[in-house]
Amino acid sequence: MNDYRIEKDSLGEAEINNAAYYGINSFRAYKNFALTEEKSNISLIRSIVRIKKASAKVNKILGYLGKDKAEAIIKSCDGILSGDYDDEFIVHPLQGGAGTSLNMNVNEVIANLAIESLGGTKGEYGIINPLDDVNLSQSTNDVFPTAMRIACIEKTRLLAERLAELQSSLQKKEEEFATVLKLGRTQLMDALPITLGQEFGAYARAISRDRWRIYKVEERLRETNLGGTAIGTGLNASLEYIYRITEEIKNETGYGLSRSDLLVDTTQNMDVFVEASGLLKACAANLIKISNDLRLMASGPKGGLGEIKMKALQQGSTIMPGKVNPVICEMVLQVSYKVISNDLAITMAAGAGQLELNAFSPLIAHSILESFELLIKAVEKFDKLCIRTLEADEERCREYLERSTSLSAVLIDILGYEKASEIAIEAFESDITIKDYLTAEGILPEDQVEKLFDGYRITNPGRSKK
Amino acid sequence: MNDYRIEKDSLGEAEINNAAYYGINSFRAYKNFALTEEKSNISLIRSIVRIKKASAKVNKILGYLGKDKAEAIIKSCDGILSGDYDDEFIVHPLQGGAGTSLNMNVNEVIANLAIESLGGTKGEYGIINPLDDVNLSQSTNDVFPTAMRIACIEKTRLLAERLAELQSSLQKKEEEFATVLKLGRTQLMDALPITLGQEFGAYARAISRDRWRIYKVEERLRETNLGGTAIGTGLNASLEYIYRITEEIKNETGYGLSRSDLLVDTTQNMDVFVEASGLLKACAANLIKISNDLRLMASGPKGGLGEIKMKALQQGSTIMPGKVNPVICEMVLQVSYKVISNDLAITMAAGAGQLELNAFSPLIAHSILESFELLIKAVEKFDKLCIRTLEADEERCREYLERSTSLSAVLIDILGYEKASEIAIEAFESDITIKDYLTAEGILPEDQVEKLFDGYRITNPGRSKK
Amino acid sequence: MNDYRIEKDSLGEAEINNAAYYGINSFRAYKNFALTEEKSNISLIRSIVRIKKASAKVNKILGYLGKDKAEAIIKSCDGILSGDYDDEFIVHPLQGGAGTSLNMNVNEVIANLAIESLGGTKGEYGIINPLDDVNLSQSTNDVFPTAMRIACIEKTRLLAERLAELQSSLQKKEEEFATVLKLGRTQLMDALPITLGQEFGAYARAISRDRWRIYKVEERLRETNLGGTAIGTGLNASLEYIYRITEEIKNETGYGLSRSDLLVDTTQNMDVFVEASGLLKACAANLIKISNDLRLMASGPKGGLGEIKMKALQQGSTIMPGKVNPVICEMVLQVSYKVISNDLAITMAAGAGQLELNAFSPLIAHSILESFELLIKAVEKFDKLCIRTLEADEERCREYLERSTSLSAVLIDILGYEKASEIAIEAFESDITIKDYLTAEGILPEDQVEKLFDGYRITNPGRSKK
Amino acid sequence: MNDYRIEKDSLGEAEINNAAYYGINSFRAYKNFALTEEKSNISLIRSIVRIKKASAKVNKILGYLGKDKAEAIIKSCDGILSGDYDDEFIVHPLQGGAGTSLNMNVNEVIANLAIESLGGTKGEYGIINPLDDVNLSQSTNDVFPTAMRIACIEKTRLLAERLAELQSSLQKKEEEFATVLKLGRTQLMDALPITLGQEFGAYARAISRDRWRIYKVEERLRETNLGGTAIGTGLNASLEYIYRITEEIKNETGYGLSRSDLLVDTTQNMDVFVEASGLLKACAANLIKISNDLRLMASGPKGGLGEIKMKALQQGSTIMPGKVNPVICEMVLQVSYKVISNDLAITMAAGAGQLELNAFSPLIAHSILESFELLIKAVEKFDKLCIRTLEADEERCREYLERSTSLSAVLIDILGYEKASEIAIEAFESDITIKDYLTAEGILPEDQVEKLFDGYRITNPGRSKK
Repeated sequence: MNDYRIEKDSLGEAEINNAAYYGINSFRAYKNFALTEEKSNISLIRSIVRIKKASAKVNKILGYLGKDKAEAIIKSCDGILSGDYDDEFIVHPLQGGAGTSLNMNVNEVIANLAIESLGGTKGEYGIINPLDDVNLSQSTNDVFPTAMRIACIEKTRLLAERLAELQSSLQKKEEEFATVLKLGRTQLMDALPITLGQEFGAYARAISRDRWRIYKVEERLRETNLGGTAIGTGLNASLEYIYRITEEIKNETGYGLSRSDLLVDTTQNMDVFVEASGLLKACAANLIKISNDLRLMASGPKGGLGEIKMKALQQGSTIMPGKVNPVICEMVLQVSYKVISNDLAITMAAGAGQLELNAFSPLIAHSILESFELLIKAVEKFDKLCIRTLEADEERCREYLERSTSLSAVLIDILGYEKASEIAIEAFESDITIKDYLTAEGILPEDQVEKLFDGYRITNPGRSKK
Repeated sequence: MNDYRIEKDSLGEAEINNAAYYGINSFRAYKNFALTEEKSNISLIRSIVRIKKASAKVNKILGYLGKDKAEAIIKSCDGILSGDYDDEFIVHPLQGGAGTSLNMNVNEVIANLAIESLGGTKGEYGIINPLDDVNLSQSTNDVFPTAMRIACIEKTRLLAERLAELQSSLQKKEEEFATVLKLGRTQLMDALPITLGQEFGAYARAISRDRWRIYKVEERLRETNLGGTAIGTGLNASLEYIYRITEEIKNETGYGLSRSDLLVDTTQNMDVFVEASGLLKACAANLIKISNDLRLMASGPKGGLGEIKMKALQQGSTIMPGKVNPVICEMVLQVSYKVISNDLAITMAAGAGQLELNAFSPLIAHSILESFELLIKAVEKFDKLCIRTLEADEERCREYLERSTSLSAVLIDILGYEKASEIAIEAFESDITIKDYLTAEGILPEDQVEKLFDGYRITNPGRSKK
Repeated sequence: MNDYRIEKDSLGEAEINNAAYYGINSFRAYKNFALTEEKSNISLIRSIVRIKKASAKVNKILGYLGKDKAEAIIKSCDGILSGDYDDEFIVHPLQGGAGTSLNMNVNEVIANLAIESLGGTKGEYGIINPLDDVNLSQSTNDVFPTAMRIACIEKTRLLAERLAELQSSLQKKEEEFATVLKLGRTQLMDALPITLGQEFGAYARAISRDRWRIYKVEERLRETNLGGTAIGTGLNASLEYIYRITEEIKNETGYGLSRSDLLVDTTQNMDVFVEASGLLKACAANLIKISNDLRLMASGPKGGLGEIKMKALQQGSTIMPGKVNPVICEMVLQVSYKVISNDLAITMAAGAGQLELNAFSPLIAHSILESFELLIKAVEKFDKLCIRTLEADEERCREYLERSTSLSAVLIDILGYEKASEIAIEAFESDITIKDYLTAEGILPEDQVEKLFDGYRITNPGRSKK
Repeated sequence: MNDYRIEKDSLGEAEINNAAYYGINSFRAYKNFALTEEKSNISLIRSIVRIKKASAKVNKILGYLGKDKAEAIIKSCDGILSGDYDDEFIVHPLQGGAGTSLNMNVNEVIANLAIESLGGTKGEYGIINPLDDVNLSQSTNDVFPTAMRIACIEKTRLLAERLAELQSSLQKKEEEFATVLKLGRTQLMDALPITLGQEFGAYARAISRDRWRIYKVEERLRETNLGGTAIGTGLNASLEYIYRITEEIKNETGYGLSRSDLLVDTTQNMDVFVEASGLLKACAANLIKISNDLRLMASGPKGGLGEIKMKALQQGSTIMPGKVNPVICEMVLQVSYKVISNDLAITMAAGAGQLELNAFSPLIAHSILESFELLIKAVEKFDKLCIRTLEADEERCREYLERSTSLSAVLIDILGYEKASEIAIEAFESDITIKDYLTAEGILPEDQVEKLFDGYRITNPGRSKK
């Protein structure tokens, strides 16, 4: 008995491992695009499968597909969605062909599963045909862009949740550190007083904007072009199908999907993914800023700022005993650089579309989903393993503040810029604090100095003019 | 008589040309940052000036600044806003110092203009002091980010208008070309029938999304941090000032500006510019797609597709007589590449902010305003000099369509994928049209063929299933 | 019996699956950096293992490590290099910690393998200690950058070979198509005559530059900082070790590695990877250009240029029968976009190094090795599945050339630019060829026309002036 | 009398200001591409002019151009090269048309200057024709890429010089700071001892690689395609011309230019600019690393590391008296971000070339020359205004080192990793130095401790094993 079967297509024959549910199209694509071990994104694959399932339902209702066939297809889809056949998807993510190969991979796996459930043997495409039955009323070019949107919506929701949790943790730190007075720094140089809480408040606000952006961008992703078939003109799809498939995929996903006003547009244009990825990039920029701030404030323990402390998560060095590194921040930074670089790939690929189709949607899909997934996990780890574990070193914070002469800015209102400047320089050179200098030199009475330099007053808008 | 005056600062003295309204801070910055001939963005400068004007008004009302001083400052601002002193702004756009130098350049020019209007001589800063008077209640770090937002809002409005006009021109072409039947192409290969109008409809829709994105992003730019001074804690600014300055700058600009919830955040975080620039990048991706499509369809005149014709705007070649090139599309493409590359600079700079400030806001400001300005003009030129002038070559369009065998897709519904495929191959090899093949071979009766291949039916969703 | 063992580190304990050769450090890192399913690059891992092996040899010779221990370590390294333990490397490629986790993962797997070979049980680190024995005389910070270089050298050689083969195939096509006269196009508009062979000659030359660049960059990658330990100052490594390890790693790899002049520099600076990746990017730009040209020339078959034909490798469409797409070119394009975007990640990460180390070397390593691997395979596929299969459609080529009026440029020498221009326009409007127009209008005698428009003469430098 | 003249071209007429030396082609291009105030790069323009001059000489020698005409053209070129007519070049740098407009702008200005010198009136192109005379034997498509190479070579030399000077300054600091012992930091956390001199040594080495790369890339830029005319096939250029023009342009520039092996390749491919720009990007990555290190080490003065001091170059704040910022580093950083983003524009534009030409060479030329010019000046300023002015705060350096417990790494050799780790933790918790802990606890005798921790020994490879 053979352990392979022969399958045929318009180009000839190929031997397919009998254990495999994929078929000749998948196999050819696998060989044509054998680049690396990287796998196609599983959320993308499942989104395609959900479209197949919805389509089979509609085709059944409209009588295009017999009940038995339709139900076998639907059952096969459910099997795949349960995760049992993930290894059957063998086409490289950077495949040529605008997603046709991945779509065929899905069609073939579904077909062979359905054939078996109907008592046939894999490859007996007379029972269920990957194209005529599984792909009925569809084209890669309406299935693939819609699947991209469905997978992205799934991810936007997860990322928005993770960002909301991160924001919440940052806000807790904002409260926790509300009275930790410290030196503010601009351009890394000593600046005015601030509280550590205010700094975390700024982080929380930045992340809240990210959350909002990610949450809102779902609206832009809800248009589907199902029924548009190859180029959005809907050739070979009936009006009834077009109306019903949109409803069905809405039910299947639970997302507020709607049919695009102009299927031709939605088939060929990828700008919504550039938009969405651009927002992920904005999030990356914020994460870079915050991670770097935390690393700087946690630097030391003896030879750096040491204003905050991170929890040790793993041994830090193979040569320096006791060294603990800000490894989660470093991971977040690398994820952020990757998100920014993926955004570039997405932008170039989106711009490279031509006429009725964008042949580079596989790269767009793979890159944006990778960015989403990296951010979802990185934000979660950042929140749980870093932010929530942070502690302030209040003493160190106060020490830096009091040593700094930039506190002289407090005096401008009362003494003018030039006099304040002189005092700053003289205090600096004498290496004493501004406050001590003011009283020592008798420039201001001590009680006024105390009032002037009150922690709340000097870190809150509009409090100085009194 | 000297043709220069001596000015002093904490670092020493410098000779300033007597004709110049700028002062020693501008001069030092000019020399420190003498990179190229490039000028700071004039919209940014004017936005700073408008803040100075609003601030002087508020400082006058609150009694922080004497009436004469305030009015002299306001008058000087108006002088600058009228465009008469553009050459006085000498600091390079890539200045270090987070914008302090450009802010000081503005302060000094205003001061010296005001000094003269009060009868003094340039440099007599006892009359009007650039810092104590012009910069009163302000810091570069609240002025500069707010000026960036004001300048960007000005540009978003202009760009949204230009995009609306472009969209409108594309829609006119959509109508004009509604019945121009042509060959659709996917992956540059012959695909299904489409109309030229549908193609322009897709362009119009893409641009309408761009218009909407640009229009909406104004909301994100409306937060100001005026009154936050150096790090957003508002040191040296009174509560009264903070309340009034927001109102005043709103009046001055006519934009719906509002005070940020957390001035510390708005002072240090630049993610809204990453967001806005990311949307410009999405617009660039669409413009790349559309320009390349047009260049492809206009290619020829004899050796390319030649489906559309562009108006000749200039002689195309120094060696090939009569050659006319798609120069506006090529300009649009280069502008788009520039916008994408500026977005990268903005993203890197935004991520590089540290603690209470982003020292690289000058690069962010310069890059995003350049992107806006390039797009505003490029979109206008694209609309007026290219899109509106386009003509269809209907005959050429029809010719390609009829020659193509991909029309066989129309047959899948009736004959199945495999049979349709066979017909396509045989028609291709015999070099006759699908329609002719069908009737010649007696596969379908002629009247059914005509109905099947009806132009409207084959280019509109859901029409095929009948 | 337990199916897990308890391991300890300075942070506490963890349960490690008894089947696993990795230990507690790997396990913690696995959990800390659990982002996606992506694996660390296997070439990088093997390069680290080769360093471990070389180091054990040197440590043995110098008496730092007992013979039994050393030989057990060496044997374990060989086991890993044979590929049997690939699944033991569980740390995510975007790990924080500058590679410490991957280094520890290697140390632990080697240690446990060695422990077993010495009759112990996994986790009995008294027999072989991952740090004190396997990592002896080393630090992540000298091992990891050296491993990056070794892995990159391996890849440069493979890529240079693949590029040489591609160049050779292009040159064969240059010869094969040497007499296929066709229309040259500039800015997609009809330009002067050229041969298809000349076009492939230009591609071959571009690829030959790529090959040369990749070949030459190996020189820049040959510096190792082994012996520099944590920051390049060589603390804890003996002079003898430093001298010998460089020799040993040279022997082990067969590459011309040499010790860096300044270990501190080589430990912290990543600019050679930016340089190397920049050259991969130049290669990507060439591949984009060539792939797009081929797609354009192969467009059609009926509705495009159709000057060349590609071999069908897979069915092209789920809806359009008989459609064959340029899928290999599309894959090459996506790989190229990815290489360009990886280059950005590498550049950002390289710039983000701080003081004595670059914490982002894991991202740099992963990205550059991915770029190499994608290019190696994509270039191979491009060569074998696309370039070698290309055929010219000579007739179509000639047809476009003769229809074009840009041939009028041939006349400038004889008649001047303006007259040539007039003739072009009139021939174009009369829709006849330039040659026919010249003789029909009696502008030039027929034999002179024939000589003027001779194929070789009009496509070779300096032949026109006769 | 009119203040404008009428000029004609194939598209019609235009009124040209009588004062202007440019003509109708320049004027149309000016209007078509009116994007911003930005000017075409003057080095690029002058390189074109030098080609015109060389070409006129060759055309004269070969008798293609009369002596009077040729000499008038040559004289006009010299006039332009002296800088007197810079304002006549009015075409925007992002012009469409592959440089045709800028080439025509040069042709027209030369022609009108030559016409005047021959006693004619501007616009009398019968005397000297911009195309038939000034552009004789040339095409934009051989002139423009050659001019790009010439301008780039000019810049590579300047940049290599500036980098050599910077390297030299860094090496002086390496010597000056050779004995300044300090704490090394990895991942911003306390690591092993190092000297400040070693850190500057690492910077010097990185810059020396940049210098070498920039120096070497000139070789790749030396190929010219003069004589190739429109597409590299040399139509309308004689063999004699082709041979002589290369010699003449070599003499004119003094650069080792040579004729490309395959003019078709050099006309259409832009990868050498991607390569060169990629090297500028590597330089940018190094500058980012170094600038950020310096900013970090200079942070403070009281609330940061304060290990080095920068010279004050300008007042740092409009609100904080006495604040001095690392403005030169900040400028260098912004320039570096710009260089990286320009590299992206160059890469995208290079990949976008099609068939016989790259229509986007104006963007490539403008971007790479801008990157060169920004780096040339930024490196000069960085050297003179920052590096040379740096001073070490030895006391602060020593203080951090002694406080740090990471010195425990010195003990691994003697006591093993685990024991060393324990000591580090206990010393840290007791807040005493490692050295004190060792002697206080009697772990090691004092003289051995002194020897172990000797400054030279602990910062130099291989010294520890004694």
